[in-house]
Amino acid sequence: MKSIQIPTEMKTKLSILACVVLSNHLCVAEDNAPANDWKPAPSNQAGKEYPQFNSEGRVKFRIVAPKAQSVGVSFRDSSPFTKGEDGAWTGYTRPLDEGFHYYTINIDGADVPDPNSHYFYGAGRWGSAVEIPAKDQDFYALKNVPHGQLREIHYFANSSNTNRHAFVYTPPDYDKDTSRRYPVLCLQHGAGEDETGWGNQGHAGLIMDNLIAEGKAKPFIIAMEFGGNPFAGPRRTNEAPAAAGGTNSAAGGPRGNFNFSAFEKALIEDFVPFVDANFRTIADQPHRAMAGLSMGGMQTRAITLAHLDTFSHIGVFSGGSIAVTNITEMAKFKEKVKLVFISYGSRELANRGDRPGFGGDPKANVAALKEAGINSVFYESPNTAHEWQSWRRSLHEFAPLLFKD
Amino acid sequence: MKSIQIPTEMKTKLSILACVVLSNHLCVAEDNAPANDWKPAPSNQAGKEYPQFNSEGRVKFRIVAPKAQSVGVSFRDSSPFTKGEDGAWTGYTRPLDEGFHYYTINIDGADVPDPNSHYFYGAGRWGSAVEIPAKDQDFYALKNVPHGQLREIHYFANSSNTNRHAFVYTPPDYDKDTSRRYPVLCLQHGAGEDETGWGNQGHAGLIMDNLIAEGKAKPFIIAMEFGGNPFAGPRRTNEAPAAAGGTNSAAGGPRGNFNFSAFEKALIEDFVPFVDANFRTIADQPHRAMAGLSMGGMQTRAITLAHLDTFSHIGVFSGGSIAVTNITEMAKFKEKVKLVFISYGSRELANRGDRPGFGGDPKANVAALKEAGINSVFYESPNTAHEWQSWRRSLHEFAPLLFKD
Repeated sequence: MKSIQIPTEMKTKLSILACVVLSNHLCVAEDNAPANDWKPAPSNQAGKEYPQFNSEGRVKFRIVAPKAQSVGVSFRDSSPFTKGEDGAWTGYTRPLDEGFHYYTINIDGADVPDPNSHYFYGAGRWGSAVEIPAKDQDFYALKNVPHGQLREIHYFANSSNTNRHAFVYTPPDYDKDTSRRYPVLCLQHGAGEDETGWGNQGHAGLIMDNLIAEGKAKPFIIAMEFGGNPFAGPRRTNEAPAAAGGTNSAAGGPRGNFNFSAFEKALIEDFVPFVDANFRTIADQPHRAMAGLSMGGMQTRAITLAHLDTFSHIGVFSGGSIAVTNITEMAKFKEKVKLVFISYGSRELANRGDRPGFGGDPKANVAALKEAGINSVFYESPNTAHEWQSWRRSLHEFAPLLFKD
Repeated sequence: MKSIQIPTEMKTKLSILACVVLSNHLCVAEDNAPANDWKPAPSNQAGKEYPQFNSEGRVKFRIVAPKAQSVGVSFRDSSPFTKGEDGAWTGYTRPLDEGFHYYTINIDGADVPDPNSHYFYGAGRWGSAVEIPAKDQDFYALKNVPHGQLREIHYFANSSNTNRHAFVYTPPDYDKDTSRRYPVLCLQHGAGEDETGWGNQGHAGLIMDNLIAEGKAKPFIIAMEFGGNPFAGPRRTNEAPAAAGGTNSAAGGPRGNFNFSAFEKALIEDFVPFVDANFRTIADQPHRAMAGLSMGGMQTRAITLAHLDTFSHIGVFSGGSIAVTNITEMAKFKEKVKLVFISYGSRELANRGDRPGFGGDPKANVAALKEAGINSVFYESPNTAHEWQSWRRSLHEFAPLLFKD
């Protein structure tokens, strides 16, 4: 799939020119009118023409609600929704960043999913999201290249006496040569998300398939567990997290809990050993990485620093950074850790760096790690915020740096 | 998970007794009041208390819509929804069959998903469904037994020059002994559903895991492709069917198309060879079965009859049957076909048998096949209709009969 980004500069210039000979009122209306090059979003359900995006990055919605008094959408600064004669309400957003955005429709005070969109787990619920095709979408496009598999896993965790649910990506050709073994990346979602995030909206499988096909990354296994959800409370016994079979994973503890000890125990005592026992991993520290986004990045920092004998490569995406002062065993850290990768979306850098618990300015911290002789990389995703386009790009930058020996 | 089915007989008797000494008005109200033993449905999102089910099989909904004029649900004969002081509307259904039911919430004329439920693909859309725990739910319960894997697959179909999307279930221990090869069941969804149905709401993986753990079925691979969706039209290019990576599967042709030739071509020329090339199958006719529900059963009948050299075991769930007169090559059919399995939910039998295209009375057809010397089985799912509980049970009855030699 190719996105066609129609430049709007010429149109804007024509519009300004037109203002000279027209009234102010018309001029303002013309300047505020969104570019009329709407296309259905790739995140729509089959056969659905809405939501649509335009070349300005606006998103237009259409909700059939003939008897409603008001319809709106959760994107701030959206246009008022107006009802047509067909009973359908339409409205559109301000220009948004390219990439993936969660949203909710509101109908007379009820927050509901858009019946036209696909549904994703994020923001603490299964609900709507819209994809505005990004200029660099090619790196996660579905292509005719060898594909890995995203495998849904049920396993029993002895440490917590529960059935747990995870996804494991196996690289292309994993089943072709059954004597070959692979490194492993444990890859974590953010708060309000779950183990479906990286495989669904994160496109982790397609990102890896394409990198591997281009010879830019070594093939490795990606293991994705449920790291807890402080925004939704624990799962119901036997609940279906991915709408795919029951589970009673209970990691993460009660609502609002940012204590990662239960997840740390599940990961180290159950999940890593399960993956090593059931997949053809190279089951040693040099061939095991951990990364995560937002809360998953905080978990990665906490867990890798406490388990330097387990992980050699560390990725923290929009989840803080590692300061030299965080490292209590510097000699061991330098010996054991082959990569520290820190990333942020450019739009979140200004107000993220010094947040409590995030460990100070990330760029300065990476510079200090380099100074201390640690292989460290800082990546800034251009023109994106605390959203999935930043994290897709982060994985795309991080993966080629892994397991290079 | 165990369902607690509280018997209501005693309560009803007490209620009738109470009527003797109370007014008619109170008596009617008491008789119509639903049993007050509501529990959250297992199909709810994490942390959501609604929908709830009770021992009568009613489902109660709660929708926060403070400014709405009316709220309802798509189940016929439901109670009116009433608004509480908290702005939440509640209402409940008539007693429903146990099992799984799609539904839609209506808010002031807008048909939307229930924000409290998990979402499933069926009825031509991703949307809400509710699970009323069935008395026999143990056969698809998540247990501490060895589990297979549900694998999401992208592959390129040369016959149609498209990327296609499928799911493949591999049995427990598939990766343990990589010299072992397995039979294959091609298992199809119904019209309005897609390749996610059997793995999600169908619980095909858990059904097989439990049967295999009990020694009741031989382990086999299940291959699930998209057989087309006459109710939703073709997929958008690069659309994400399972919200998991893009695809541009285009099987099934235009809206309303019940011509299966495109799917037959995709299945025989691309998918079966892909599965044989990429999984450790026993790639011959005696070890290949096909089954499907509703439209998938019609496809199974059409495709297996035309490809007796490809499939040896045939399962048609709520999708018609095979009459002796359908079989043009009886000698070959008797030589090649090891099993014909036909099933229906009991509530649909009365009005399904003689529908055009369904091939006549299914019980009589099975009896005639037996008479003709063909190993044939008829299964009737008790007290269920044209819904997933019939099809879960059908797979559970069908699987143990496969590949018995």
